[in-house]
Amino acid sequence: MMTLEDKFKLLEADHAPGQEVRQSLGDLNSIMIGEKLDGIFVDFSHGDVDAFAPLPGAEEAWNSGFKKGAKQAYTEYRGAAKIRTGLAERLGKFTGKPISAENELIIAPGTQGALFLALGTTVTFGTKVAVVTPDYFANRKLVVFLGGEVVPITLNYKEAQSKMGVDLNQLENAFKSGTEVFVFSTPNNPTGFVYSSTTINQIAALAAAYNVTLIVDELYSRMLYSGEKYTHLCACDVVPENLITIIGPSKTESLSGFRLGVAFGTPKLIDRMERLQAIVSLRAAGYNQSVLDTWFNEPPGWLEDRIRGHEAIRDELHGIFNAGKLQTVCPQAGSYLFPQLPELSVDLHTFVRLLRYQANVVVTPGTEFDPNCTDSIRLNFSQDLTAAVAAAKRIVKMAEFYSI
Amino acid sequence: MMTLEDKFKLLEADHAPGQEVRQSLGDLNSIMIGEKLDGIFVDFSHGDVDAFAPLPGAEEAWNSGFKKGAKQAYTEYRGAAKIRTGLAERLGKFTGKPISAENELIIAPGTQGALFLALGTTVTFGTKVAVVTPDYFANRKLVVFLGGEVVPITLNYKEAQSKMGVDLNQLENAFKSGTEVFVFSTPNNPTGFVYSSTTINQIAALAAAYNVTLIVDELYSRMLYSGEKYTHLCACDVVPENLITIIGPSKTESLSGFRLGVAFGTPKLIDRMERLQAIVSLRAAGYNQSVLDTWFNEPPGWLEDRIRGHEAIRDELHGIFNAGKLQTVCPQAGSYLFPQLPELSVDLHTFVRLLRYQANVVVTPGTEFDPNCTDSIRLNFSQDLTAAVAAAKRIVKMAEFYSI
Repeated sequence: MMTLEDKFKLLEADHAPGQEVRQSLGDLNSIMIGEKLDGIFVDFSHGDVDAFAPLPGAEEAWNSGFKKGAKQAYTEYRGAAKIRTGLAERLGKFTGKPISAENELIIAPGTQGALFLALGTTVTFGTKVAVVTPDYFANRKLVVFLGGEVVPITLNYKEAQSKMGVDLNQLENAFKSGTEVFVFSTPNNPTGFVYSSTTINQIAALAAAYNVTLIVDELYSRMLYSGEKYTHLCACDVVPENLITIIGPSKTESLSGFRLGVAFGTPKLIDRMERLQAIVSLRAAGYNQSVLDTWFNEPPGWLEDRIRGHEAIRDELHGIFNAGKLQTVCPQAGSYLFPQLPELSVDLHTFVRLLRYQANVVVTPGTEFDPNCTDSIRLNFSQDLTAAVAAAKRIVKMAEFYSI
Repeated sequence: MMTLEDKFKLLEADHAPGQEVRQSLGDLNSIMIGEKLDGIFVDFSHGDVDAFAPLPGAEEAWNSGFKKGAKQAYTEYRGAAKIRTGLAERLGKFTGKPISAENELIIAPGTQGALFLALGTTVTFGTKVAVVTPDYFANRKLVVFLGGEVVPITLNYKEAQSKMGVDLNQLENAFKSGTEVFVFSTPNNPTGFVYSSTTINQIAALAAAYNVTLIVDELYSRMLYSGEKYTHLCACDVVPENLITIIGPSKTESLSGFRLGVAFGTPKLIDRMERLQAIVSLRAAGYNQSVLDTWFNEPPGWLEDRIRGHEAIRDELHGIFNAGKLQTVCPQAGSYLFPQLPELSVDLHTFVRLLRYQANVVVTPGTEFDPNCTDSIRLNFSQDLTAAVAAAKRIVKMAEFYSI
């Protein structure tokens, strides 16, 4: 059995997005190569809600929730019934799978909160959990926290488009060998890869056949670029008995400051998730829940504009990195880029600190998404276009400075 | 090893405060004794923030936080540095123990969130945790969720004032037999009992001697009634190496709808708690954190007024229950009453449902606080005085109807 000391070493969060401010930059002068690169500070560890503003009406919705007083402050743990009703209907339309507001949906403090609840109710000591590498860092860390065993599933993302994806034989072998839960994000975080319709249907069928619980993170599924197609696993013909889909308005809609997310799926699991929420955070902040009424309820054209704005930045940055010899897959959805660095004279974490110190740019090291990925960095490009382009050029310049 | 199925049975939340709306009342007509008792609906399962309004300035603080944009949306996981700095100073003054904002304090989604983080970082499979009975329901349930073993410590609360409290011999025996963590609330939830200065000092010394981690829940410590004294364990001369104190503005200050709480203590544990928060909810909602600036920063006289208002209700209700033969300890702090019912012809959970159906009153059954406590109900009397008095009289009447 792992000690708490060892467990929390594995949960180390010093390199997690947003925590950079806690790292000392004191000793970097002595190892710096090249000059300081001036430019507007860009924090690519998360999106910039000043560049892409929160959903129209969010502030007003919060204020009207506050004015409702006690009945909005104290909702059911799974969230206010009326808000769930609207959400279930709109999410049902979005995914193509009807959702019961009464039994199949829970509101959580962020998509992160929903992910925790989903894994917290399906993973215990010794549970084998298939986790894609690379994928969102909390997937792996939550399994460690809960005492489960991570079974890594490789995502081939550097291949030609037709060969991208997970190896379904590897996945089936994991299912055959006692894996009880499979958690993955599509679009994938950090690469922006979207699982094909064929693959999604095959994963659903395999999970059904082997009675594996599926947790599908669709956080970025609305930010889908020109010509791309998205498949919601929950709407497949064959699905496993235990299936939870999670999504939230923190990214595309820039509502992260409200900590709101949603999980929907198997009633028995949603019930358990509510029991867990009761002892973890009680509920998503009552007044904040009101803001969910604005989600999937946007003014006409709002989503298209937002996607167009991000697609322009994606194309610029993707061009800059590949021209600068940082091989980078073109994301099909979401706002992440995952450039691969050339061989450097310093290790990845030092390079990331140097980027901050020398080039005024914050990025997240690839090790957060795959402990063995020591040659890539993740950028959330939901930023001001001009500032992001300039910062991307500084990153390329920095890679030249430190390239062997 | 407990299965997930069994674990989540033990975490059943149908009787938890706020969840009453999910219970069916359909079959009660056939067992009803006496007539329906009309009166304004009172939900004693939590305080009424319409009767006692949120702290002055809370709404404005939230709006100014929202206007700060990105820097307030994305704080460090442990909370915005500037807000922590103010809080650490004010909480240091309140408790008499200086607190480092940098290393010794974390902001969580509610005091509930802080409690989860504290136990989540100190309890794993097999950890023995001393839990007071009765005490806040999540203490016991969190230990179950984390795979620990509950070691019950009896709180004698029905005795004469001089004999009230925990038996320190029982506690020391638990510490001697491998208990690694002790969690308790003072004032106690549900009784309002405040641990004496002598006892607090003895608990601190025992924990130090046996190297036991202490988690002290001071949620209701500001709502202290006339003539009572409160001792902060963290300010004792001898304290254990591992000590976490939790507190939040959800109760006395009526800010529950914001989900804000704080934990402070041993830097190593606070570090771990931040790592856990990173994968559970990331952070307390960014904009909401701004509201903490109003806490322990109230207008002169505000706290005294609030205490006076609650003391008046306490005295009225305490009188009504004891006159009505529902023996009830007089709380020294907080806004809970824990009346003991006479022997009834129906079981406790049925009686609680009947109270809702027949008397328009919601209360929480004693079993939430001690699984064996099937003869008591808890009321949060932070309510409108007139409505609460009428509802208390209906409870007495109902006890008469169903008394054997």
